[in-house]
Amino acid sequence: MKALLVVNAGSSSLKFALFGLPLIEGAQSLFRGQIDGIGADAQFKLRDANDAVCLDQRISAPAGSSLEEQHQISLDAVLAWLGTQDIELVGVGHRVVHGGSEFSAPVRLDAEVLAKLDALCALAPLHQSHNLRPVKALMKRFPTLPQVACFDTAFHRTQSPLAEAFAIPRAISAEGVKRYGFHGSSYEYVSREMPKLLGDKAKGAVVIAHLGNGASMAALRDGKSIGTTMGFTAVDGLMMGTRTGALDPGVLLYLIDQHGYDSKKLTNFLYKESGLLGVSGISQDMRTLEASDAPEAKEAIDLFCYRAAREIGSLAVAAGGLDAVVFTGGIGENACNVRARILGYLAWLGLEVDAEANSQRGKAMLISKPGSRVLAAVLPTNEEWMIAHHTVLKIDA
Amino acid sequence: MKALLVVNAGSSSLKFALFGLPLIEGAQSLFRGQIDGIGADAQFKLRDANDAVCLDQRISAPAGSSLEEQHQISLDAVLAWLGTQDIELVGVGHRVVHGGSEFSAPVRLDAEVLAKLDALCALAPLHQSHNLRPVKALMKRFPTLPQVACFDTAFHRTQSPLAEAFAIPRAISAEGVKRYGFHGSSYEYVSREMPKLLGDKAKGAVVIAHLGNGASMAALRDGKSIGTTMGFTAVDGLMMGTRTGALDPGVLLYLIDQHGYDSKKLTNFLYKESGLLGVSGISQDMRTLEASDAPEAKEAIDLFCYRAAREIGSLAVAAGGLDAVVFTGGIGENACNVRARILGYLAWLGLEVDAEANSQRGKAMLISKPGSRVLAAVLPTNEEWMIAHHTVLKIDA
Repeated sequence: MKALLVVNAGSSSLKFALFGLPLIEGAQSLFRGQIDGIGADAQFKLRDANDAVCLDQRISAPAGSSLEEQHQISLDAVLAWLGTQDIELVGVGHRVVHGGSEFSAPVRLDAEVLAKLDALCALAPLHQSHNLRPVKALMKRFPTLPQVACFDTAFHRTQSPLAEAFAIPRAISAEGVKRYGFHGSSYEYVSREMPKLLGDKAKGAVVIAHLGNGASMAALRDGKSIGTTMGFTAVDGLMMGTRTGALDPGVLLYLIDQHGYDSKKLTNFLYKESGLLGVSGISQDMRTLEASDAPEAKEAIDLFCYRAAREIGSLAVAAGGLDAVVFTGGIGENACNVRARILGYLAWLGLEVDAEANSQRGKAMLISKPGSRVLAAVLPTNEEWMIAHHTVLKIDA
Repeated sequence: MKALLVVNAGSSSLKFALFGLPLIEGAQSLFRGQIDGIGADAQFKLRDANDAVCLDQRISAPAGSSLEEQHQISLDAVLAWLGTQDIELVGVGHRVVHGGSEFSAPVRLDAEVLAKLDALCALAPLHQSHNLRPVKALMKRFPTLPQVACFDTAFHRTQSPLAEAFAIPRAISAEGVKRYGFHGSSYEYVSREMPKLLGDKAKGAVVIAHLGNGASMAALRDGKSIGTTMGFTAVDGLMMGTRTGALDPGVLLYLIDQHGYDSKKLTNFLYKESGLLGVSGISQDMRTLEASDAPEAKEAIDLFCYRAAREIGSLAVAAGGLDAVVFTGGIGENACNVRARILGYLAWLGLEVDAEANSQRGKAMLISKPGSRVLAAVLPTNEEWMIAHHTVLKIDA
């Protein structure tokens, strides 16, 4: 059968999902795999459509291999496994973090587009170059294989210049320092699905909360993004697993002046040491914290919910109202207590939670009471499918 | 007559107001003066109770004077002028930016308290040491003269730990890195006055917008601060005259990595080059921007209003509702178009602006329509009186 590969490459990981064609609306992947620890002890884990592990092996690289070579070896391992499958690979869709101001939709990758995306690396130094690595490797090896980039930022290009702007000098804004927003494939998928649950209110003022290890929210009007909590980078906005979210920039000055932090230490502080992990001192995983009796775990969850609720208030003003709140992402789909806590802050807006509905996990459902003025819902996201869908459209598969 | 001096000392300025005793509720000062440009060409300007300039002279320091000596000469000039007045100075009240976690109310100054306040300089490096300079000079020269410190942070010590917390590692929080909030004397004054206009709603969920060259908002319940936009420093929250307000911390990483900014350049960027000035490229003064036809001026005003409105949404969630919005500060009291624009974003919450009432400037008034579900009001602030009032209470004058 014909098949598509969806790839999400990081600094030390390579995630992928394989979809069979024709692509059925909202289908799960046939297989999904992940190689973690590239550069150290790389491990390749593969799961089938039933989420059963069907491969779990170490990827060994020859002693002295460079990091680039180790990435190449990991990609080769995926290609080797693909070679064992009875499929014809007709295209690859890549999750690429940054499309800058230019790319407001997925794009077929060629040398010219690639050069433009390379030029955006300064805007997303932690992700962009890693996202593009397998694009280049595959382009070299299979020059005729169609590849498509789907951008985390693209969905938010409907934002007004006002929603995108920071209050900074024009010269710096002109370099592209503005609110791009991320998690676009997730928002796009959820926004396609939400009319099924929300009916006409899906066209109104909707806040989608994508709550995972990375977390953000977007406000939509008529299904289009008009504001989002992640800004120039993926560290702004909501408290996350290990990221601060919104933070008084004066705190960075304090860390530089009082603790001698440099850019690398600040980056670790903002991206790796903060959020649920930093506040709890226990874990970045919401499930671990929910199972803990430690007051520090409770503090971390309390803060996560409080900051999320306050961002909904801010986004509702951007949207000029609030007709519905939709949860997605690992935490959003499964942590019913977190959902209940966040929604509890919105009772004054006429949002009534249906406690019984909300006690369920991991499925598409309304969780507001019948008659609640503001609706609340859960909608499992499927970013890989969204990328596969765009890839199909771009390559006429 | 007996009199009190209220002092607000900065890095290159010395502001003061003289109040006669007994202190009448909400009274204006007998005189208010300001010495600007200390360290360069210092200029002493004094205004009487009718706001007429009654003194405008250069303060000259001997060639080669140190900055400390020049500050001393400026203070001496104020004391010399006081000596020409038929008053008995019975106390001095100081505006001090930071009271840390300990000081939740004004405090009589002595060596022990002063040592504690000195220890807070790392939390407010741009202000604290300058605020304390005249305290020390006066203590040396007039050891028995009662002095009182009123803190910008004190009013917000009613915030919950949740509202104060950043999502950062516990070890850094434990150093005192949390949301203190500022403009406390202004909020305290306005919160005392607001029952006159708001009636019972003054006890509800009220957002006070202190919009001046520095700008912040606070959410109050039962007259007490439960959340505010300025955080650890006075750069967070709202867009201001020259400050960014809330900013993706990733922007600072970008400036460090791509432009080689150090702490000093970052400080200038955050505090001096951004806000209305940075976005417009024209002025930090709202009056100048409102009078301009330049699209850049309009962009700056648009962004100021948009960001302010979004913060009201966030604070309303913190307060669990919104019963009233109260404007104060130079912009809040006078810029009726800015007020109308901000409140326009809140129409969906049931806030109806009375355009005719709102067209007036600089006086206490309701500016919402009769029957508006959410009230809106203007209340001119009087921070100097608030400090004078506390000074009277602390020294039994």
